[in-house]
Amino acid sequence: MERERLKKQFEFCREIDKEKFIGRQTYLTDGQRKENDAEHAWHMSIMAILLSEYANEKIDVLKTITMLLIHDLVEIDAGDTYAYDEEGNKNKRQREETAAERIFGLLPPDQNEKLRGLWEEFEEGATPEAKFARAMDRIQPLMLNDASKGKSWIEHGICLEQVMRRNQSTADGSKELWDFACQNFICPNVEKGSLKQQEEKL
Amino acid sequence: MERERLKKQFEFCREIDKEKFIGRQTYLTDGQRKENDAEHAWHMSIMAILLSEYANEKIDVLKTITMLLIHDLVEIDAGDTYAYDEEGNKNKRQREETAAERIFGLLPPDQNEKLRGLWEEFEEGATPEAKFARAMDRIQPLMLNDASKGKSWIEHGICLEQVMRRNQSTADGSKELWDFACQNFICPNVEKGSLKQQEEKL
Repeated sequence: MERERLKKQFEFCREIDKEKFIGRQTYLTDGQRKENDAEHAWHMSIMAILLSEYANEKIDVLKTITMLLIHDLVEIDAGDTYAYDEEGNKNKRQREETAAERIFGLLPPDQNEKLRGLWEEFEEGATPEAKFARAMDRIQPLMLNDASKGKSWIEHGICLEQVMRRNQSTADGSKELWDFACQNFICPNVEKGSLKQQEEKL
Repeated sequence: MERERLKKQFEFCREIDKEKFIGRQTYLTDGQRKENDAEHAWHMSIMAILLSEYANEKIDVLKTITMLLIHDLVEIDAGDTYAYDEEGNKNKRQREETAAERIFGLLPPDQNEKLRGLWEEFEEGATPEAKFARAMDRIQPLMLNDASKGKSWIEHGICLEQVMRRNQSTADGSKELWDFACQNFICPNVEKGSLKQQEEKL
């Protein structure tokens, strides 16, 4: 019985290796290669440990990190949808629900329920942990975009308004970190022109 | 004052992006690309969350994951030393100490002390958390080596004895997981010949 449980757990552990193949649009700090989902989750988890003191509300750090580590697993089946891809974002939710069903479903029932619950909590963004995790998920790419001289923003012709819309709830996780990100990662890139002031009208 | 603290924290967060450039010898499950340190740490952290129930001794999961997430950061300066590289392993400790000094030293003093302490605890391998974290650090590549048909073992001509020597403390973290790994990841590869029975005498 226990052996069956362990087999399921390792089947899941092996399957999630595929998250390393899911590319994102953010460049690493050297500006040469784009990040993948697993690297992104690792990076944010350390950031959450170090920066949890700035959360607006008291958070359970283990719960927050677990959310961050697993929240992109659905992209193994559903793929990464670029933050500013309006078309792709329309059916994102349905594609991800189906993926969650299959991927978390590899686990024993109790762990399936736990991880699926954390994924849904992250998606809803209502609890202190989900709000802070979502803030990390926004701020980490802002930091990397700044470090790579806005390369990804330039490539996609992204404007300030899009970034602000994308980040409308970031301050709900941490007002202090959002202020820091505005001053250090967003504003300098508007000044340098790597983030356009306004969307170009075609 | 607080802004200074936050600046240091973000300086560290930006610096550790470089862990994504540190390659390991283990192939991903598709057998095409080798893993990097950040991906490895992410993978093990999720494994630790799911498999902590098999630890020989009760462990603090947050502490264990934090160890796993940060324990390879020293390789940003010191590089990855392949498990079976005897020459490289001779001065590994000194190279890593110097790296820890610089990298964790980017943090505010309290967080420098905390992370450096966790890294040292991992290296010593004496506490329940360190023993379990070290077991994860050994079992995750065994799982990937099996999934990629022993490709890395074949490439380096690794034999069973070397794997057993490398894993002499794995059961100290979890007897149950070590048994599972022997039966499912090691033995089948000896049978298939991807792991040699004996070292070839030259």
